[in-house]
Amino acid sequence: MNHFTTDLDKNKANYVPLSPLSFITRVKDIYPNYDSVVYGNRSYTWLQTYNRCTKFASALSKQGIGLGSTVSIIAANTPELLEAHYSIPMTGGVINTINTRLDAETIAYILEHSDAKLLITDTQFSPTIKKALGLFGKKIPIIDIHDEQAIFKDDEGEKIGDWTYEEFLEKGEDNFQWSLPEDEWQAISLSYTSGTTGKPKGVVYHHRGSYLMSTGSVTAWNMPNKLTFLYTVPMFHCNGWGYPWTAALIHAKVICCRYIVAKDIYNLIDKYKVTHFGGAPIVLSLIANADENDKKNINHKVYVLTAGAPPTSAILEKMDNLGFEVMHVYGLTETYGHILQCAWNDSWNNLQNAEKADIKSRQGVRYPNTEEVIVADPETYAPVPMDGETMGEILIRGNVVMKGYYKNKEATKLSMKNGWFHSGDLAVVYPDGYIQIKDRSKDIIISGGENISSVEVENVVAKHPAVSLVAVVAKPDEKWGETPCAFVELAPGKEATADEIILFCKENMAGFKRPKYVIFGDLPKTSTGKIQKFELRKKAKEI
Amino acid sequence: MNHFTTDLDKNKANYVPLSPLSFITRVKDIYPNYDSVVYGNRSYTWLQTYNRCTKFASALSKQGIGLGSTVSIIAANTPELLEAHYSIPMTGGVINTINTRLDAETIAYILEHSDAKLLITDTQFSPTIKKALGLFGKKIPIIDIHDEQAIFKDDEGEKIGDWTYEEFLEKGEDNFQWSLPEDEWQAISLSYTSGTTGKPKGVVYHHRGSYLMSTGSVTAWNMPNKLTFLYTVPMFHCNGWGYPWTAALIHAKVICCRYIVAKDIYNLIDKYKVTHFGGAPIVLSLIANADENDKKNINHKVYVLTAGAPPTSAILEKMDNLGFEVMHVYGLTETYGHILQCAWNDSWNNLQNAEKADIKSRQGVRYPNTEEVIVADPETYAPVPMDGETMGEILIRGNVVMKGYYKNKEATKLSMKNGWFHSGDLAVVYPDGYIQIKDRSKDIIISGGENISSVEVENVVAKHPAVSLVAVVAKPDEKWGETPCAFVELAPGKEATADEIILFCKENMAGFKRPKYVIFGDLPKTSTGKIQKFELRKKAKEI
Repeated sequence: MNHFTTDLDKNKANYVPLSPLSFITRVKDIYPNYDSVVYGNRSYTWLQTYNRCTKFASALSKQGIGLGSTVSIIAANTPELLEAHYSIPMTGGVINTINTRLDAETIAYILEHSDAKLLITDTQFSPTIKKALGLFGKKIPIIDIHDEQAIFKDDEGEKIGDWTYEEFLEKGEDNFQWSLPEDEWQAISLSYTSGTTGKPKGVVYHHRGSYLMSTGSVTAWNMPNKLTFLYTVPMFHCNGWGYPWTAALIHAKVICCRYIVAKDIYNLIDKYKVTHFGGAPIVLSLIANADENDKKNINHKVYVLTAGAPPTSAILEKMDNLGFEVMHVYGLTETYGHILQCAWNDSWNNLQNAEKADIKSRQGVRYPNTEEVIVADPETYAPVPMDGETMGEILIRGNVVMKGYYKNKEATKLSMKNGWFHSGDLAVVYPDGYIQIKDRSKDIIISGGENISSVEVENVVAKHPAVSLVAVVAKPDEKWGETPCAFVELAPGKEATADEIILFCKENMAGFKRPKYVIFGDLPKTSTGKIQKFELRKKAKEI
Repeated sequence: MNHFTTDLDKNKANYVPLSPLSFITRVKDIYPNYDSVVYGNRSYTWLQTYNRCTKFASALSKQGIGLGSTVSIIAANTPELLEAHYSIPMTGGVINTINTRLDAETIAYILEHSDAKLLITDTQFSPTIKKALGLFGKKIPIIDIHDEQAIFKDDEGEKIGDWTYEEFLEKGEDNFQWSLPEDEWQAISLSYTSGTTGKPKGVVYHHRGSYLMSTGSVTAWNMPNKLTFLYTVPMFHCNGWGYPWTAALIHAKVICCRYIVAKDIYNLIDKYKVTHFGGAPIVLSLIANADENDKKNINHKVYVLTAGAPPTSAILEKMDNLGFEVMHVYGLTETYGHILQCAWNDSWNNLQNAEKADIKSRQGVRYPNTEEVIVADPETYAPVPMDGETMGEILIRGNVVMKGYYKNKEATKLSMKNGWFHSGDLAVVYPDGYIQIKDRSKDIIISGGENISSVEVENVVAKHPAVSLVAVVAKPDEKWGETPCAFVELAPGKEATADEIILFCKENMAGFKRPKYVIFGDLPKTSTGKIQKFELRKKAKEI
């Protein structure tokens, strides 16, 4: 008989559902007067932020927002969006952050599909939102974030809501009594994938996962208490990888950054002695290649996470020279953001810079909150050999894998089967266990029957001194089936011809992998800095 | 209809039971060649430690150890005891660490009550264990830890087991396939309280709680990755507050310390550049008051947790001057160790040293893994006013409260009722929310109808320059009912009379609280450094 299971049940003294909401209660109790959020001429302490969140939650409750209610929010990285990560879940509701760069049709689709009960919207985006609301048709309460520090262009800035955020806040009670979820599996957030094909899918997170993403981040990124975090990652993207909650856990100070402009980033880092921030490689590129006038000498250590695409070794080296310590991480909307990290290993300290940068461009090894990540055949689940060459699909298991897709049983079942979440990313594993993504399934170029990883070609092109940013896609080809086609942004003041770049590739990689076409010009990007390869694929066809 | 609860169930891809065993799998995958444990002339990497744990788990399985089996271990802080924190739970078993200072009768009681299926025992303790096994009577497999680096006295060192640890290890298979618990609520550890009255009670921890104690410790103590931890806290005490597991989470290096001797501690800190350790105030006293010949100049920052009793301001000041940054924490066996911390607040930076030390002697505020700690009337649950004066009982709620007492439904029910764990400790709350323990219920002195906190009297006596250690208990008194009686250890080379100390108290606190008796001599202590007040109460009666 196993006495360890007798008379030792859960009770309210020894079992509390995990929720990141617990973090903000604790920080306001212990560090009430520490800065929570600074945004231009506005700043709050953790006590003030807590009080604003509970009061806003109270006002939401009065509007009927409660267990399972979706509240959509379309906002820039301002204090309101951080607060919404607490106030909405405090009511039992679910925060649905919407990408601010989406078109009206997609926004209307999301409002409809998510069963949005209320919308909070920044007036900078009013022109699109008005259109979206027209398409959406339903009448729901709308709250305007009217940001006095925004720079409004053209017809932006129109108030289209029933109240401003501050007016709505005043409708709430002080000392509102909210409660933790009864069940840690309760939904906390709903995020729609950008979905390059088909309708976007709604990814559901739960309180347990968001709690564990925060505690995992602290260890993975070695985050000390009371650090200063610059919010460059859009908070609408996987809840900004969870840092609205992690910040409260470690009583960090969050510096909001509305516009991703090199000058602002340098100024904020300098002014507030920012120690940590995150951004897609495109943001690093912006920082590394900034105008000398916009740069500041940073004399303190700044830790940077980069995600969304593998950073090129060229960018990594530039960032290193500027004093930024960059770690590459990898994740998906479906995994609450980052779940792999290119954790540094002391045995690499004596490598050459180029070798170090090569390692740093790998996606790496799992987060502490992620149970298993394997690269395997998605049919047989046989792991690939750890040879750095054999490709397989990245499969993930852990508590920071989504509950599933909202109202989409079919897609949920397809994505999680046989105990694994199927990422759709193709990768290799090195002998030391570090994973490197070679491509999305659909980004592989098949030329003359040979698989060419577009990422591999990109890495070579990026090493050319004149190249600032590059994306390689397949161009249909009568003879070869497909051939690599490179789209290139040149570094400011630098020049190069297509032939020079093709020659450079020929000298630095297998001949059949070299791009046959090189096109210069600005690359189309999503709001999170991901290059929109589907746009480039269209272009490539037309050449 | 709440679509967030439809078709979004747990599955093996998105739900994994929380267990600290996950930490060691990750650390051996990512940092296989980093040092795990160093003990004198022995040292291991995390890969080696992992392999030893799985092999030992395999050997345990062959002996029939599995789900719900208790494995008792009586050991000093050597690598074997750290390994047992993994190997035993890997089989599904429960680690029962036994205090090495216990008498044979109590050990026999624990072996019997815990349903021990196997015993691992350090040969230093063989004389007592032999006696205990005689009383216990049952025949169970016994494994000897025979430590070549131990200093054996008298009849110590006798092998009494069926195998040595290394022999038993060799019976296991390499690459043993173990698995995480099916349920994170599964028992991982069983620790008997020291119980000054009545039979010791068996406190049961689960995998979820031990996981959360580790992630909470990282944030509470601001522990960076890869720190060097000196194991001065006995690992048999609340699983050494969980650090055998926390070490793997942050790929720390653990330095084992078998004997708590000032010279050894200084040498190890100096040799390995130890950054973190813990110890009862008695250990700090040992360090602070060490012979000058035994001390080393420590030129790097060393962070110290102290628990078990409030450190006196005198000790805190000495430690500070020596370059140790001490944080006072509080907890119980029933709460997996520490759940309150005297977290420093920047607003205190400009206070006088004495005021700082006063604050640091408070137990403080809750750990991130601890949901609520209140000081309240244990009948009505009304919280006391935050005035630093009104006493109430410390009540605790959270995931690091035990499952309950093993085979003791009655005690479990009494300790956890109405949603709160009842600590039995009496405390006040200051206006800033910081908690200070005034006494155990039974340590309160009631003199002429007035409550006197023995801790408060101790804090005043400790400030006398000649005093090294003090304990105050109630002495029965015909006139007053009880009066305070102080037992004092003098600092080396210092002298004082009873009258001097009573006068010093009179000048520094309310007259009725001053001790009427002062007795000089060594204080009786438990192995974890707690002063045995029940012994002193006996003495006080006899004076």
